[in-house]
Amino acid sequence: MTAHPSKRVYIASDHAGVQTKSELCAFLESLGLHVEDLGPHDTTSVDYPEFAHLLARTVVDDANAWGVLICGSGIGMSIAANKVPGARAALVHEAYTAQMAREHNNANIIVLGARVIGPEIMKSCLRAFAQTPFDGGSDGRHARRVAKLEA
Amino acid sequence: MTAHPSKRVYIASDHAGVQTKSELCAFLESLGLHVEDLGPHDTTSVDYPEFAHLLARTVVDDANAWGVLICGSGIGMSIAANKVPGARAALVHEAYTAQMAREHNNANIIVLGARVIGPEIMKSCLRAFAQTPFDGGSDGRHARRVAKLEA
Repeated sequence: MTAHPSKRVYIASDHAGVQTKSELCAFLESLGLHVEDLGPHDTTSVDYPEFAHLLARTVVDDANAWGVLICGSGIGMSIAANKVPGARAALVHEAYTAQMAREHNNANIIVLGARVIGPEIMKSCLRAFAQTPFDGGSDGRHARRVAKLEA
Repeated sequence: MTAHPSKRVYIASDHAGVQTKSELCAFLESLGLHVEDLGPHDTTSVDYPEFAHLLARTVVDDANAWGVLICGSGIGMSIAANKVPGARAALVHEAYTAQMAREHNNANIIVLGARVIGPEIMKSCLRAFAQTPFDGGSDGRHARRVAKLEA
């Protein structure tokens, strides 16, 4: 993702996040973003790592996009997504962390827990994430740290 | 880490988490755990990925241990730690997620944001994490998903 979040957003979830995903798709579109829903499209039980890897690979392959992942707690999605080289997935519970995830960590995926925070808090997180450019740091320290993320 | 969290805990932070780390070391020892502090040991500015990778590799190499990571928001540490194969790092803000991270995701590292939650909330998270065994699921679904985490 370039310094400033782009207008193209991919979104995916597990079964616990399907309903929330629909609501957030509509919200993201209301922000003027182009949203592509990678599924799932019903509440049949699925394995979250499959959707986390699909979304993370899609985002990494499309340098001009960012992603949203939703599961029950957000933990499974954030672990699985970060296993993909180039993915920087940030599990956030409030807008301050969403802003810092962009500003300091150049996160390209935001992860939300549908059983932990409510829809209006999620929207404030998404708005902060979508509007915050990466700041490499006046001395380049944030950019240096991001460059060291891959193990 | 075995099904139930063990008594051996490694802890590390960046400069933003050094003071919190000291307080949490004392708390973890009060729970009867053996704690090893991997640093840093003063508030000189450091690059969080170096401490995240050090701690994650140490935990993965010691199947009978778990880990604690602290930075300002928790985001940088959780991204970096999960890049290490075998690491399952969970950024938590409250005890419910800490419990779920163990029960469903078999997390072996808990990540805390020193600028986001206060010390007593952190302690409730650590207590939940330390006391919750992994539950593979009555039909094995949680274990199957954990096995799919690596990309």
